[in-house]
Amino acid sequence: MEHIPQVFWLIPIASVCALGMAWYFFKSMMKEDEGTPRMIEIAEHVRQGAMAYLKQQYKVVLLVFIILAIIFAIMAYGFNAQNAWVPFAFLTGGFFSGLAGFFGMKTATYASARTANAARQGLNNGLKIAFRSGAVMGLVVVGLGLLDIALWFIALTWFYSDKMTSSEMLITITTTMLTFGMGASTQALFARVGGGIYTKAADVGADLVGKVEANIPEDDPRNPATIADNVGDNVGDVAGMGADLYESYCGSILSTAALGATAFTASAGDMQLRAVIAPMLIAAVGVFLSLFGIFLVRTKEGATMKDLLHSLGMGTNTAAVLIAAASFLILYLLGLENWLGISFSVISGLVAGVVIGQATEYYTSQSYRPTKSISEASQTGAATVIIKGIGTGMISTCIPVLAISIAILLSYLCANGFDMSMSAASLQHGLYGIGISAVGMLSTLGITLATDAYGPIADNAGGNAEMSELGEEVRSRTDALDALGNTTAATGKGFAIGSAALTALALLASYIEEIKIAMARVGEQMTNVAGEAIDATNATIPDFMNFFQVNLMNPKVLVGAFIGAMAAFLFCGLTMGAVGRAAGKMVAEVRRQFREIKGILEGTGTPDYGRCVEISTQSAQHEMIIPSLLAIIIPVVVGVFLGVAGVLGLLVGGLAAGFTLAVFMSNAGGAWDNAKKYVEEGNFGGKGSECHKATVVGDTVGDPFKDTSGPSLNILIKLMSMVSIVMAGLTVACL
Amino acid sequence: MEHIPQVFWLIPIASVCALGMAWYFFKSMMKEDEGTPRMIEIAEHVRQGAMAYLKQQYKVVLLVFIILAIIFAIMAYGFNAQNAWVPFAFLTGGFFSGLAGFFGMKTATYASARTANAARQGLNNGLKIAFRSGAVMGLVVVGLGLLDIALWFIALTWFYSDKMTSSEMLITITTTMLTFGMGASTQALFARVGGGIYTKAADVGADLVGKVEANIPEDDPRNPATIADNVGDNVGDVAGMGADLYESYCGSILSTAALGATAFTASAGDMQLRAVIAPMLIAAVGVFLSLFGIFLVRTKEGATMKDLLHSLGMGTNTAAVLIAAASFLILYLLGLENWLGISFSVISGLVAGVVIGQATEYYTSQSYRPTKSISEASQTGAATVIIKGIGTGMISTCIPVLAISIAILLSYLCANGFDMSMSAASLQHGLYGIGISAVGMLSTLGITLATDAYGPIADNAGGNAEMSELGEEVRSRTDALDALGNTTAATGKGFAIGSAALTALALLASYIEEIKIAMARVGEQMTNVAGEAIDATNATIPDFMNFFQVNLMNPKVLVGAFIGAMAAFLFCGLTMGAVGRAAGKMVAEVRRQFREIKGILEGTGTPDYGRCVEISTQSAQHEMIIPSLLAIIIPVVVGVFLGVAGVLGLLVGGLAAGFTLAVFMSNAGGAWDNAKKYVEEGNFGGKGSECHKATVVGDTVGDPFKDTSGPSLNILIKLMSMVSIVMAGLTVACL
Repeated sequence: MEHIPQVFWLIPIASVCALGMAWYFFKSMMKEDEGTPRMIEIAEHVRQGAMAYLKQQYKVVLLVFIILAIIFAIMAYGFNAQNAWVPFAFLTGGFFSGLAGFFGMKTATYASARTANAARQGLNNGLKIAFRSGAVMGLVVVGLGLLDIALWFIALTWFYSDKMTSSEMLITITTTMLTFGMGASTQALFARVGGGIYTKAADVGADLVGKVEANIPEDDPRNPATIADNVGDNVGDVAGMGADLYESYCGSILSTAALGATAFTASAGDMQLRAVIAPMLIAAVGVFLSLFGIFLVRTKEGATMKDLLHSLGMGTNTAAVLIAAASFLILYLLGLENWLGISFSVISGLVAGVVIGQATEYYTSQSYRPTKSISEASQTGAATVIIKGIGTGMISTCIPVLAISIAILLSYLCANGFDMSMSAASLQHGLYGIGISAVGMLSTLGITLATDAYGPIADNAGGNAEMSELGEEVRSRTDALDALGNTTAATGKGFAIGSAALTALALLASYIEEIKIAMARVGEQMTNVAGEAIDATNATIPDFMNFFQVNLMNPKVLVGAFIGAMAAFLFCGLTMGAVGRAAGKMVAEVRRQFREIKGILEGTGTPDYGRCVEISTQSAQHEMIIPSLLAIIIPVVVGVFLGVAGVLGLLVGGLAAGFTLAVFMSNAGGAWDNAKKYVEEGNFGGKGSECHKATVVGDTVGDPFKDTSGPSLNILIKLMSMVSIVMAGLTVACL
Repeated sequence: MEHIPQVFWLIPIASVCALGMAWYFFKSMMKEDEGTPRMIEIAEHVRQGAMAYLKQQYKVVLLVFIILAIIFAIMAYGFNAQNAWVPFAFLTGGFFSGLAGFFGMKTATYASARTANAARQGLNNGLKIAFRSGAVMGLVVVGLGLLDIALWFIALTWFYSDKMTSSEMLITITTTMLTFGMGASTQALFARVGGGIYTKAADVGADLVGKVEANIPEDDPRNPATIADNVGDNVGDVAGMGADLYESYCGSILSTAALGATAFTASAGDMQLRAVIAPMLIAAVGVFLSLFGIFLVRTKEGATMKDLLHSLGMGTNTAAVLIAAASFLILYLLGLENWLGISFSVISGLVAGVVIGQATEYYTSQSYRPTKSISEASQTGAATVIIKGIGTGMISTCIPVLAISIAILLSYLCANGFDMSMSAASLQHGLYGIGISAVGMLSTLGITLATDAYGPIADNAGGNAEMSELGEEVRSRTDALDALGNTTAATGKGFAIGSAALTALALLASYIEEIKIAMARVGEQMTNVAGEAIDATNATIPDFMNFFQVNLMNPKVLVGAFIGAMAAFLFCGLTMGAVGRAAGKMVAEVRRQFREIKGILEGTGTPDYGRCVEISTQSAQHEMIIPSLLAIIIPVVVGVFLGVAGVLGLLVGGLAAGFTLAVFMSNAGGAWDNAKKYVEEGNFGGKGSECHKATVVGDTVGDPFKDTSGPSLNILIKLMSMVSIVMAGLTVACL
């Protein structure tokens, strides 16, 4: 193991610490009392529903994984069109991502009743349990991610170290490891799409019949879909979000490592190795700082919404500021070339993440003008609520796009010493800077994901309190926790999407490396800019762009860009349609139960919760197939017919349109949700008024916007890059 | 004039024929009886409102034009950063575009009462008047377009013919003429955005209070906003659509001519000249075939919707089939190099137009599954109508994008002899093919625009019949004409957007030429692919792309693409918001009149129609400024800060995202409209039922989608290219 520097071991250590603390938080949460028999019973229902769903989901995904692994194996062993490790890397990526979702959900479903019970004692107790349970998810994701990275790095170094030079080895290892991101992406896509359809089918179904027709409140035990609704929060927001960010986390680290391996080949000494482990080290240190931040989160009884926000903000902001400072130290001690500039690249990613989060809050919180004016539009009915919400959502894309644009330019320029010459070397270093800015944004994922996963736990705690008919005071405490969850979720979504865009850009650069390697594998040559034949692996980015004519006047690039933009819309359209159909089935079932089971509404009959859970599960499983397969198939087809130029056009078009569309949908959905809450707080007539009904329509439309289609787009833009990377061999074979 | 070939004179002849026939149709329409005094009075109200609006609009636009012309003049004469003709070309483009809108609207407002009156005699009479009045618009647009082109071509040839070689002259003339497209684009943008806001503020306002609150039918004379609503159809759909397509028509012909001038420089003889006039000739022949098609449109009494559609289809399809055949003949007789291949390029554009039209009809007509299922979703309320409509709209982007993509690839390959080598020559010829495919799509604009402009005339005729309380039979005839108008409008929108995308692509290629010319003007050199210094005008496209590093790994290109996608969303968000605010003002005014003017609802008091017209006019004028200026400013700012690479990224990102977004919004809006109609036809409870109310919400949301934001995007994507072209000198100065 002399090829692995000592400082590398910090990475598995961080991983073990994260997993150990997750285990500790889980255990201490489990020690808490789950409350009254009624509370335990409801929690058990939700738990069973969630696990039944996950089991079903994993069955389908397993089948897809087996088929894809066989295809990769045939490509690798039958046609030499693939690296031999890919099938295995693919499977471990999928496995760890699934495991992270499983642990996160298991924790969340055990935590909700306990949070509700703790809220009976006080707000701080409730917050502590909910937040630490959320932290289990955050820590499991970063822990498993770093574990997977560390294990593969060690194994591949061991395998390759006596077969090639250190420089070749690092390039081979990092590009191989990148493909395990494809496994994580695929798992994440199914988790996000399936979970997103599940949760919104249940939510929309429960709301439409329960709230609107039968006029019973949210989470009322008389509503047959209420358990399914609570299950949905767990499978969509916890498992889906976890798998999504697991994928961004690993994807950003691995693509940066791969970019580092190629960017620093010409540098002296072991600079290349330092560049490869730099993103892993930043992530590892980020784990410790996240843990520190997690311990900072606490609040006092009678805390206002502002206090609670302050408390969570204290944890995340402290971690963010510390990692910013630590980056300088890490890169300086590591002795990385241009360590100062690259540290600023890390900062630019972090700042963009914060700006996107703040903008998200501004556009979606009822404390600010945009959301308030959506509530105001309810005075002229549901139609103007929708028009206003869509308008606001579209306008809200401006700041995030500018923030990401500035982060791209700054991280690029800082990392290559403000060199705009677009020379081969300056490009490579600049792209490494873009990659590491994504790592910066995600380095404190341990705590930012904790604030995300906390949301559905608080939401479920509220549901449990309502169904268990706990006192008004308890309910108002869980409501405060829940409201906070909505804000942190919006911020978390901003982070998720910002990091997805930067990661996708880094993957774009990695795609070029994979194509070069795939060409070298089958012995194909390229020509450089001057027209001389060269080995594909020696081609610089300008050579590559010139050889494949990846410029904006190539009709293949243009058509690729059109198809990329369309793919984003088509994918959203399919998932919106899926939610519509699934919700329709749920509505029919709930109406049937109200009609056929006597005494439900009077509280004397028990609704058949299980049937609603079953319907959501089946619909989600059924409906997730087509959009998910589409995301995998489109880049393959474009690669076969339009080649490398078409694929790059596709990825850029998909990224630009997909990112903007995702911000629009998430923010419009969040704003509608809070516009309804603003009316419920007593404005424009309050609960039950005509204005309230109009905002409920907005909220219902917003549900699939913000929880199904919008967040699924994050994965779409990354997965399309991942598929292109893994299928590089096929694209090359079709040249 | 020995430099102008004899066949060229066909172009002014076609122009004069078109304008003459427009005059004839206008005169014969004016001879018809306008009906009862009540009908005349209402028509007069609408006419005055429309003209008052247009006057106000032209005032604002004139101001913008003067400012821009001064800027261009300073750039041209002060800093040599602009061709000296630009300020004048810009002004004539704007003037003719405005004139086309003025004539079209004048005709439409005189025709509506006459159509209603003719419908008292029979369906055929009504159809004939409405359609021939629509044809005035179509013929004026193509007539003025060809006139402007012919005049400038003759004048510039006269001016330049003794100053440079024939080859240089053609390049100079065509690139100069291209800039008059900027005038047309600017005029079109204000017409579309202002008209779009006007019409939907009035429509939404009238519907929300009239239909929903006061429960009075559409176009009821008791509704104070009803005149404004009818005015809106004229200013939005007639004047707006006319200016939009005037711009696409001229833009596609001029950019193809410019591409022809550069693509055929190396060819023997006067091939370059032939390539320049080829698109003009196809357009000229298209005028005669459109006239032929217009005379084919007639129907018999008791005609069903299908018969009417068949009748209109007969006219447009015959013209389309004939121009396809004629293209072969024209290009063969013209003796253009590769005339057979280029003819197939023309056909591929035509076929794409038809496919997009058909797909639009499938996704928006209540005869098909998608729209029916939106109606079905009304059973579970307004929210599911919205979800389903958005889902359907997003899915509907698939076919148009694929159709355009295939048209791009085919027209490119047919025009360069299936050469995928991306050599300089093959690229130039291929791009010429893409340009001429747009010309193919628009060559029969004379008749396709007639079927568009016919729509609002029929709609207004219905309004007039309703307000004049004509008999049930008359109303049912105008309803039949109106329903037909909705379908043809959907098809027309498909055509408008398809041609906008192809034209924008051709403009993209022209942008490169303008940058080269701007560099040559200030004496800047380029390097070619091999790294040698060359004159900018001698740079091939691959040289250009290499010199400016316009490849997909350049962060400037990537950031440009992000900003382009965002610009499309931001622009839509702003126009949606504008409609929301303007409609809010209208609602307040209508409510005030119901409250303060006694006896309106009983029919004994007269509402103050004028005040509503005024509010719409003021709101539209006020609200159109920011989105319009944004479309002009964004490409300038990107050019200054991110240079040529950034601008090309911006244009491609804006085009891919904007096109898809426009299809989504137009189709979702159209589908909601017809889903409501489907319920009104007696399905799911019919008029007045809960389902009907839910679909009315969908229709109201769809109004700004399909008539404001969606169609304005067509112009945005063209205008951004046009601004970049005209501002090329500034971009070069900032390099």
